[in-house]
Amino acid sequence: MSMEKMTLRFRPYDLKMKHTFTIAGSSRTMTPAVLTEIEYDGIVGYGEASMPPYLGETTESVQSFLRKVNLDQFSSPFLIEDILSYVDRIDINNTAAKAAVDIALHDLVGKLIGQPWFRLWGLNPDDAPMTSYTIGMDTPEIVRKKTLEAPYEILKVKLGSESDKELIRTIRTVSDKPVCVDANQGWTDRNQALDMIFWLQEQGVVFIEQPMSKNNIDDIAWLTQHSPLPVIADESVQRLSDLIHLKGAFSGINIKLMKCTGMREAWKMINMARAIDMKVMLGCMTETSCAISAASQLSPAADWADLDGNVLIANDCFQGMRVENGKIKLPEAPGIGVLKC
Amino acid sequence: MSMEKMTLRFRPYDLKMKHTFTIAGSSRTMTPAVLTEIEYDGIVGYGEASMPPYLGETTESVQSFLRKVNLDQFSSPFLIEDILSYVDRIDINNTAAKAAVDIALHDLVGKLIGQPWFRLWGLNPDDAPMTSYTIGMDTPEIVRKKTLEAPYEILKVKLGSESDKELIRTIRTVSDKPVCVDANQGWTDRNQALDMIFWLQEQGVVFIEQPMSKNNIDDIAWLTQHSPLPVIADESVQRLSDLIHLKGAFSGINIKLMKCTGMREAWKMINMARAIDMKVMLGCMTETSCAISAASQLSPAADWADLDGNVLIANDCFQGMRVENGKIKLPEAPGIGVLKC
Repeated sequence: MSMEKMTLRFRPYDLKMKHTFTIAGSSRTMTPAVLTEIEYDGIVGYGEASMPPYLGETTESVQSFLRKVNLDQFSSPFLIEDILSYVDRIDINNTAAKAAVDIALHDLVGKLIGQPWFRLWGLNPDDAPMTSYTIGMDTPEIVRKKTLEAPYEILKVKLGSESDKELIRTIRTVSDKPVCVDANQGWTDRNQALDMIFWLQEQGVVFIEQPMSKNNIDDIAWLTQHSPLPVIADESVQRLSDLIHLKGAFSGINIKLMKCTGMREAWKMINMARAIDMKVMLGCMTETSCAISAASQLSPAADWADLDGNVLIANDCFQGMRVENGKIKLPEAPGIGVLKC
Repeated sequence: MSMEKMTLRFRPYDLKMKHTFTIAGSSRTMTPAVLTEIEYDGIVGYGEASMPPYLGETTESVQSFLRKVNLDQFSSPFLIEDILSYVDRIDINNTAAKAAVDIALHDLVGKLIGQPWFRLWGLNPDDAPMTSYTIGMDTPEIVRKKTLEAPYEILKVKLGSESDKELIRTIRTVSDKPVCVDANQGWTDRNQALDMIFWLQEQGVVFIEQPMSKNNIDDIAWLTQHSPLPVIADESVQRLSDLIHLKGAFSGINIKLMKCTGMREAWKMINMARAIDMKVMLGCMTETSCAISAASQLSPAADWADLDGNVLIANDCFQGMRVENGKIKLPEAPGIGVLKC
């Protein structure tokens, strides 16, 4: 038995957006993040918390949470279940802060074992899906420009405003790539929402994320029942314990590491979603290639991936998961498979 | 990339019982089993199918199933999800045959990685529970003898006959160890069953397994609601997809590798059970230390374990999981942690 201790380090790191990013209700040029490291026996695991402002966590709250994490009580980083259950109990919420510990611990343990996580989960890297690229709301000129510049083969748009159809029509003037739609709870009338979904289906849309408010689960269930396209939960799902309540109301779930506390719980969510016949999408926030590569380890088990957070920022400080011809390519390196630049 | 292929071998192996084994409806002195091996790159993983006669699989059906398994199509044993999903699709049922492939593959992959599975799942071996020792129905003299000989600190009895109370009273003449009760669907009236459960609670019983027929889920749900002891599903649960239907009807589930197709699905069942607030018990059939050690890898995540199948047989041909002072001790050896004798 090694007498080594684990050391947790962290520092703020502001993510600079290449383009101003607009979704229903907000717009921004920067996303605060905190980068973490857990060192053990000379090996360093990397992690990250990303805090889009509308989710409630901040650089201060994440650092305050991380200061409470005492890893000295654990004899080994291999005790992932004990360690992350302890971290989860430190306080409610703080899911991005918890993910920052989870990702660094997974990276560390994968490096100690000498294997990437997709392999430890028994996944086939060839099963990794295409990933989509998000086009924010903007003027028609900018939308056309961003659509033409999109590096991936599937597009994703955030709808939920007056100009939804115009945005789709603008994209269709320059591209016939499949489009995923995230309505961000933006629609309020279920009949209008259903009409919109039928129209979107004709426009080559693949699925609809969170069409209506998370407080309106009955209307969403009605919509899912009548919709020709899969209806995916985003704001309606955070963690594993939410899934039991979503069976029947949605066709699938969007799993994001920053919402669900990290890789450990995300893998459990995928397996439970499969067990109750729900589709799985992997999403992200604005993140460096650190958290994106962590999420990509799960991607062979997902139906769809929207892991573009790293290409939207100008100051990515990690190399890891790549995308070739729109498809996720998983690195062979152990842990989450990243190199710090 | 290695150009090696995986080779699957198997042979029948009859398990000789130390004592004639009686449960509601049958009694036997032998349990047929099939031992498997998967070899890759000079490393051999061990597996096992055990076929208690009342479950429908036989030495012939298992060998016939295993002859259909073609592992040549897979480039690597690490593709656990693809391989075991393929094996599961070969035919319905055949869960012990599928488990025999699953266990051998897990043993092989753990050995290739160089880690035991409890560690790959992030579990703490110190969290492994006590295991129970099964006392079959028999004459009072034999029951007293078996109770006194019981090597573990928790007893388990199979009830469901006229002489249920007599059996418990007989045990209590010689031992005050905690007792787990498996009614094996034996009770038919829910009010009588509830009275019995209250009586059993007074006798120091810990939980009740499968009090009534699996076809009588409404009465079981009523019983669970009124019972002072946890009510655990055994015949009512086989696989991961069953769990969604058991929420509310039972307090927990008994997971057995031979029912659920093996370690991969068992781990997913544990995680889903936790997500829907159900207790977890790990059970077994009459098995060698091969399948018992495979199940024990999961035991740190279980509330209770009944992993005594290996001590009930006279011709165990593996060494692996041990029990010290009634508590499961996991071997540090990689894979499922067994040595062939």
